[in-house]
Amino acid sequence: MLDKAIVQQLQSVVGEENVLTRKVELVAYSYDATADMPHQTPDVVVMPTTSEMVQEVVQIARKHQIAIYPRGAGSNLSGGTIPFKKGIVLSFQRMNKILEIDPANLTATVQPGVVIAALNSAIAGHGLIYPPDPGTVATATMGGSAAENSGGLRGLKYGVTKNYIMGMEVVMASGDKVRFGGKTVKNVTAYDFSNLFVGSEGTLGIITQLTCKLIPAPKFRRTMMGIFSTLEDAGNAVAGIIAAHVIPATLEIMDNKTIRTVEAFANIGLPVEAKALLLCEVDGMSQDLVNTEAEAVIEVFKQNNCEYKAANSDAERDQLWLARRNALPALASLDNTCIVEDATVPRSRITEMLVACERIAEKYNVTIGTFGHAGDGNLHPTILYNMYDEELTARVHLAIDEIFATALALGGTLSGEHGIGLAKMKYLGDELGQSGLDLMRSIKEALDPDYLLNPGKMIPLPEVVA
Amino acid sequence: MLDKAIVQQLQSVVGEENVLTRKVELVAYSYDATADMPHQTPDVVVMPTTSEMVQEVVQIARKHQIAIYPRGAGSNLSGGTIPFKKGIVLSFQRMNKILEIDPANLTATVQPGVVIAALNSAIAGHGLIYPPDPGTVATATMGGSAAENSGGLRGLKYGVTKNYIMGMEVVMASGDKVRFGGKTVKNVTAYDFSNLFVGSEGTLGIITQLTCKLIPAPKFRRTMMGIFSTLEDAGNAVAGIIAAHVIPATLEIMDNKTIRTVEAFANIGLPVEAKALLLCEVDGMSQDLVNTEAEAVIEVFKQNNCEYKAANSDAERDQLWLARRNALPALASLDNTCIVEDATVPRSRITEMLVACERIAEKYNVTIGTFGHAGDGNLHPTILYNMYDEELTARVHLAIDEIFATALALGGTLSGEHGIGLAKMKYLGDELGQSGLDLMRSIKEALDPDYLLNPGKMIPLPEVVA
Repeated sequence: MLDKAIVQQLQSVVGEENVLTRKVELVAYSYDATADMPHQTPDVVVMPTTSEMVQEVVQIARKHQIAIYPRGAGSNLSGGTIPFKKGIVLSFQRMNKILEIDPANLTATVQPGVVIAALNSAIAGHGLIYPPDPGTVATATMGGSAAENSGGLRGLKYGVTKNYIMGMEVVMASGDKVRFGGKTVKNVTAYDFSNLFVGSEGTLGIITQLTCKLIPAPKFRRTMMGIFSTLEDAGNAVAGIIAAHVIPATLEIMDNKTIRTVEAFANIGLPVEAKALLLCEVDGMSQDLVNTEAEAVIEVFKQNNCEYKAANSDAERDQLWLARRNALPALASLDNTCIVEDATVPRSRITEMLVACERIAEKYNVTIGTFGHAGDGNLHPTILYNMYDEELTARVHLAIDEIFATALALGGTLSGEHGIGLAKMKYLGDELGQSGLDLMRSIKEALDPDYLLNPGKMIPLPEVVA
Repeated sequence: MLDKAIVQQLQSVVGEENVLTRKVELVAYSYDATADMPHQTPDVVVMPTTSEMVQEVVQIARKHQIAIYPRGAGSNLSGGTIPFKKGIVLSFQRMNKILEIDPANLTATVQPGVVIAALNSAIAGHGLIYPPDPGTVATATMGGSAAENSGGLRGLKYGVTKNYIMGMEVVMASGDKVRFGGKTVKNVTAYDFSNLFVGSEGTLGIITQLTCKLIPAPKFRRTMMGIFSTLEDAGNAVAGIIAAHVIPATLEIMDNKTIRTVEAFANIGLPVEAKALLLCEVDGMSQDLVNTEAEAVIEVFKQNNCEYKAANSDAERDQLWLARRNALPALASLDNTCIVEDATVPRSRITEMLVACERIAEKYNVTIGTFGHAGDGNLHPTILYNMYDEELTARVHLAIDEIFATALALGGTLSGEHGIGLAKMKYLGDELGQSGLDLMRSIKEALDPDYLLNPGKMIPLPEVVA
């Protein structure tokens, strides 16, 4: 419990109506979208409405050495927002203004609490899009997705969040406010601070404003589904599409477990015997180019022994997308706990990774459905289990260990888009080595020497190390 | 002078043939491509051939507190490689192997001394390109251009160096070697180290290997030149092209001074009365799309009162490009000293910036020709003068001060693509403020506490501050 005097100070900074202290209110901030994580209620939730308020809150926290957890929608999948050491949840839900849309410079400037989908709605009339599209666009905030460097379905062609953040205002652990970057397409003044804070999961500074890049919305698209009887054929088709120099907007894969589960869940007529489905969408500014690319994709599908369907209308497109849209809800319905991993491998290794996920599911006798962004090598092995079954839970953990070890052995990475947070911290050294961990820690300690900002995320607290 | 024993240690690490100590050899490393900078010969030039050698050299330097200056081709334009405090120039000219080209993953892995053009030659047979194209592609190295986050003509559509570096091996000031990133399109494991070292100008670590992203080469292109009688019309045309949602591969501008100078230099029939030329090239994967975009550009040209030429053959394209290619050589021929600045503004402000450059040239009675990447707002005001004329040189310096102040006042940045180095350090606080300078310094000191790596670049040495 925080001292009453501190709560009053916080209330005087942000207003009483922007401070939550009742247990029933705090409990909603004790967890996030990540399964299999410890819950912890914070001492207080503070909802600032200006960056100056954020500075003052940081000064109070610093004076009393209270931990601060910046929080958007809490939709992350790595335990990144759990207030692990108690303290202050700094919620940006009331700092949600779109400050400027600048079509001439193809930029938008927003407060961190703006929901991604709200930004896209606001710019649609200008024929522009903000491309990063994590599965949570309808709820995730710009600040949260910047802190997590969120990916999504269009990463292969359009890149991820970091490719769209041009400038920021950040409040540091010192209480200082720093602004950098801006509306210029090129900027090599100073170190690349934007990309340092993007993906730093709130451990280095608190993002209080963002300037992001927008692009003209693609005008045409074509959607196709390939139905494969072996994982090898599906993997070869992915490679073949890239070899044909087609970069699809989305190139999604679902394995047999996912196909069967979606079909049982949604009854949409999926081929339950198929070993893999590929869902491919090409888009662009010319019908001609999009048609050419679609034909190239279909040609690759044919060369890899697959049946295919091509959408000829928006209704048919929606039908093809139904399978993919239902993947996570269907899998999640199988049991009370659903861990969505995001082990990621070089594109050329996805067949091996898919085969490994099947083997691991069998070895540990756990349920794993795998789907994800095949074009990125960014797979989501999704583990379903009963968290109240301790023996099963232990096997799930072993299976997860092996999934990560496999991804690293294939030249991949622990996390393609979900972040490290609490969930993957223990594996970090396996990818980075001790020298990489040391580098992480030296940056953390340079910017937040007292470990006040989202402590215990990404890298262990010093006392845990000692 | 270094102690002989230290030179012998260096020789035993990299081989005698890879250590230069003779004055006549060292003098070539006393300067770089930047005008108006002090020259300084290093104590020794060391040319490692492996990253392990780099580690050993760093250990020796650290033990004896000797400064190290990583150096590629020395073609930077900010004094970034000048061995300001004497010590060891670490030249990567003999670490120039392309280690792997991986068409399936669209990546290449290279040693830092690989010349950008050499990489592009090696991947051309795969139909791939590495897009970053600073003016120095024929000499600049991958390591140097990564350290400088080099830009180029295609930044607007294709981005700059940082958008293409996916992974690295870096030797730290501690002598530790760290590897991070890799071949996965998505990677959110750890802080974004790649983007921290890209653009850090050798002040945070020494890049010893790079994995970079490649893209399929565009198949078609169309090139057009617009001839404008006012700067406003040219600026409006730039805005109009973007408003038409055409993102050209290149959108270059030349002002009247540059046009006249090129014409006097090369006699290619340029319209010497024109206030500005725009050179626009659209490219892509479909002839149809490229034609559509070219027509849209021409339509915008027409709406902005310009005469235009469109190339109908490669020969005609080369003819249009002749003007732009000659811009810097022609301007540089005007006097014995040529400072190429890269003050950069939001695209919507380029007319104001061009007008300001003309006004500043007049105010200080100095010769300034401005050309550059209009689509990026990345202009190159180029100042020609006689460096032996002290009074003129003083006026040149005042003019440069005012160019930067103007760029910042227009919401721009000190450097779009050349970096801070020695040349722009004194302006850095004007853009970043004290809190930004503090952030720079805390990162520098966390990674290089003894200021051994390229000391005195980007941020002043501590003794200078005190």
